[in-house]
Amino acid sequence: MWENFVEHKNVEAIMHDKGLAKVGDGLVNFCYSLAKSLALGYLTGEKVRDSVLARAIRATSVYRHMNRRTDAGKAGDAYEAIMAYLWMTEKITISDMVDSLSESLEIDNTTSRKKEGEIAALSFQKFLESNIEHLP
Amino acid sequence: MWENFVEHKNVEAIMHDKGLAKVGDGLVNFCYSLAKSLALGYLTGEKVRDSVLARAIRATSVYRHMNRRTDAGKAGDAYEAIMAYLWMTEKITISDMVDSLSESLEIDNTTSRKKEGEIAALSFQKFLESNIEHLP
Repeated sequence: MWENFVEHKNVEAIMHDKGLAKVGDGLVNFCYSLAKSLALGYLTGEKVRDSVLARAIRATSVYRHMNRRTDAGKAGDAYEAIMAYLWMTEKITISDMVDSLSESLEIDNTTSRKKEGEIAALSFQKFLESNIEHLP
Repeated sequence: MWENFVEHKNVEAIMHDKGLAKVGDGLVNFCYSLAKSLALGYLTGEKVRDSVLARAIRATSVYRHMNRRTDAGKAGDAYEAIMAYLWMTEKITISDMVDSLSESLEIDNTTSRKKEGEIAALSFQKFLESNIEHLP
């Protein structure tokens, strides 16, 4: 179904694909909403900030493929693009992502927005690290 | 995984569940982005307006379970809640939704925003109609 959209030869091409980032934005927000719902015990919707995804990707080895002076917006887009790529090539499922994120998402109703961002960044980092092997 | 969140006894309870609507918002936007990407031939991200989903649900038999004076925001939420319910109870998959929406989404780069909304509303209506049997 998605073959024509994911013919990238290397991870740089994935990370700079604006279309993948747009699809990945929806994917990441949806999965984080579900993971947070599991963590809190009630359903919620959430938009993940660029700064959270930027922090996650900067902590992984993938980031050396990007310009060091990349801003948080572009780094966040790169994270989203990679997630879209992995999902569209069927290397990950939404369940995989929700399971992995929720496992390490130790937050509750008293967690501050700042602290939640730090914890979430670590969850997103772990998930990417465990899937780097699937990237070209 | 989601059993505890989808113990609704009737469709009214589903349509008024704010948590389901929040999850459904992400689900609907993600699926529409993918369906629109297939229709246009390039990847894109999209937010579906409440008015589009309101138009879709008002055209189905499900809507008689809602107050007639419900505004577009609440009607859109009801549509999103139903989609979240169907997905969380594994009655539909994301592929089902993308396939069904894209099949009837006859738009291109020249389609106006207004016209796209009308066409999308019809696609969302058809998808809901073909899944009404799965609701309690």
